[in-house]
Amino acid sequence: MLNLYSTILPERLNMADLGCSSGPNAVRQIHEIMDFIDEKRRQLGRTSPEFHCFLNDLPGNDFNTVFKGLPVFYEKFIAGVPGSFYGRLFPRSSLHLVVSSTSLHWLSQVPVGLHSGTNAHLNKGRLYISKTSPPGVLRSYLEQFQLDFSAFLMSRSQEIIIGGCMVLTLIGRKSADSSSDECCFQWDLLANALMDMVHEDLIEEEKVDSLNIPLYCPSPEELMHVIEMEGSFAIDHLETIEVEYNTSDDNDDDNDGNDMRGHQVAKTFRVVTEPMLSEHFGSGEIMDDLFYRYGEYLQEYFTRNKGAKLISVLVSMVRKG
Amino acid sequence: MLNLYSTILPERLNMADLGCSSGPNAVRQIHEIMDFIDEKRRQLGRTSPEFHCFLNDLPGNDFNTVFKGLPVFYEKFIAGVPGSFYGRLFPRSSLHLVVSSTSLHWLSQVPVGLHSGTNAHLNKGRLYISKTSPPGVLRSYLEQFQLDFSAFLMSRSQEIIIGGCMVLTLIGRKSADSSSDECCFQWDLLANALMDMVHEDLIEEEKVDSLNIPLYCPSPEELMHVIEMEGSFAIDHLETIEVEYNTSDDNDDDNDGNDMRGHQVAKTFRVVTEPMLSEHFGSGEIMDDLFYRYGEYLQEYFTRNKGAKLISVLVSMVRKG
Repeated sequence: MLNLYSTILPERLNMADLGCSSGPNAVRQIHEIMDFIDEKRRQLGRTSPEFHCFLNDLPGNDFNTVFKGLPVFYEKFIAGVPGSFYGRLFPRSSLHLVVSSTSLHWLSQVPVGLHSGTNAHLNKGRLYISKTSPPGVLRSYLEQFQLDFSAFLMSRSQEIIIGGCMVLTLIGRKSADSSSDECCFQWDLLANALMDMVHEDLIEEEKVDSLNIPLYCPSPEELMHVIEMEGSFAIDHLETIEVEYNTSDDNDDDNDGNDMRGHQVAKTFRVVTEPMLSEHFGSGEIMDDLFYRYGEYLQEYFTRNKGAKLISVLVSMVRKG
Repeated sequence: MLNLYSTILPERLNMADLGCSSGPNAVRQIHEIMDFIDEKRRQLGRTSPEFHCFLNDLPGNDFNTVFKGLPVFYEKFIAGVPGSFYGRLFPRSSLHLVVSSTSLHWLSQVPVGLHSGTNAHLNKGRLYISKTSPPGVLRSYLEQFQLDFSAFLMSRSQEIIIGGCMVLTLIGRKSADSSSDECCFQWDLLANALMDMVHEDLIEEEKVDSLNIPLYCPSPEELMHVIEMEGSFAIDHLETIEVEYNTSDDNDDDNDGNDMRGHQVAKTFRVVTEPMLSEHFGSGEIMDDLFYRYGEYLQEYFTRNKGAKLISVLVSMVRKG
């Protein structure tokens, strides 16, 4: 990112946050980046650019909440951009910096291979890749990720100026194996909870069989492979970061630490997945029941796996000339 | 606007609609302009630019509805910009074309002179300028308009490139007299309806006395005066347009035409003013009562003034070098 505040020195810096969502963090990251660039420019004795910040998410995102919560920036201009980042969102060569945080692991759709023709219910009783998934499931998920991430890079390659930067973080994995426990156990345990409810006749089995989550947690190598194949960007940094599952302050490590962690993680997970799950299984009590059971499964998992961490992959790259 | 598609010929055309609101017309005008420029460029054998369209309104505007209703444009990119157009909204020299339709007659606030110090209740029993208003009321309204419109022009002069265009329409008047019936009768009749309710003890008199609508309907000369004083823009077109009050299809001119016009206009007026009025006087039945009475007053007015028209002022200008 050094060239943005030292070499390129634009008078106006256009930046975009793709997949901003509408929570309290929607503008936090972009704000921190502006402060960082301001500070670096000041150290170099240069005036700060005017920032034009674009906050993107799908058209169904609650932009009203984002806009009402905006702090007043001096000479920092904010706009909301509705649309899918798997297609074009901005005019050609109009952006200097693009960030996307915890968003790109969501696919544009459920992998086509999982529900086409003879493949109906290929991933029976599971929601995502699992140790028991047939190889076709792993292949379908990887192919959909490659297609989507390529489309993302192609769109951005047209929108970002030569020398411009892109910094992406997404949920991923360290292992070369996409059925590795580190990125699959959350979905496996949720599927367990659902299947328990199937056995108690609370949910139809067909409903579980037909649901696959449109998500992929790539390895750094898989990301690198797509970036190199697409060819417009040069990677300048790529790493995996381990993130604690339990970030709640009231959980004290001296006090065993895992007491309520499962239910806390279930609660966080619920915020993200409930809209999708309740559309499929129904809302209200059925969701309360499901996430209680899920919390219990997670409790037990964290007791057995005290060191379990969420894996985040960070990649920063520069638009090649 | 000719230079936008013939001389300047930008690869990317940045345009903004200021005060877009959230109704079905929010993107109609900007869409028509893009089609017009596309067509003109095609006639000249030039390729079309990529359009970057910014839709602005106050942060409380329902941008979610605007975004969900967006048509899919090919290579036309849309962003929403929350904020007051009386301040800066965009980086320096970043816009080629600005439009604002039926929005700039709303002031940034109730004229300061109307409620400061000894001037409390200067405009007793009225909501806007009226034939019976003391001269201080006319002066206060004009001064607030001049302040606001100057601030608007100053902000835009920084944002629009040299040679860039701005096209504004706002509700105004033809007469040099700001208490002229053509722009005041709507508010006078609404004040009459409110005062009737005061006399029936349905509303407190003090509530009517303390309410002044933050609006000003300027004459073309008043607009021209502020534009010349501010100095950044050269006017290339200025006209007043008469708009029919009754645009409803089911009103047949052969059938006297004015039968229900008053109540129809009251209904339209209600959409715009109810949020402001109900906050002041209360919502529900009291608003139903008020707008029924208002409709009756308007009925009677249109019977006496069959030719009454809404006056719209259109001004187009170019950012001077």
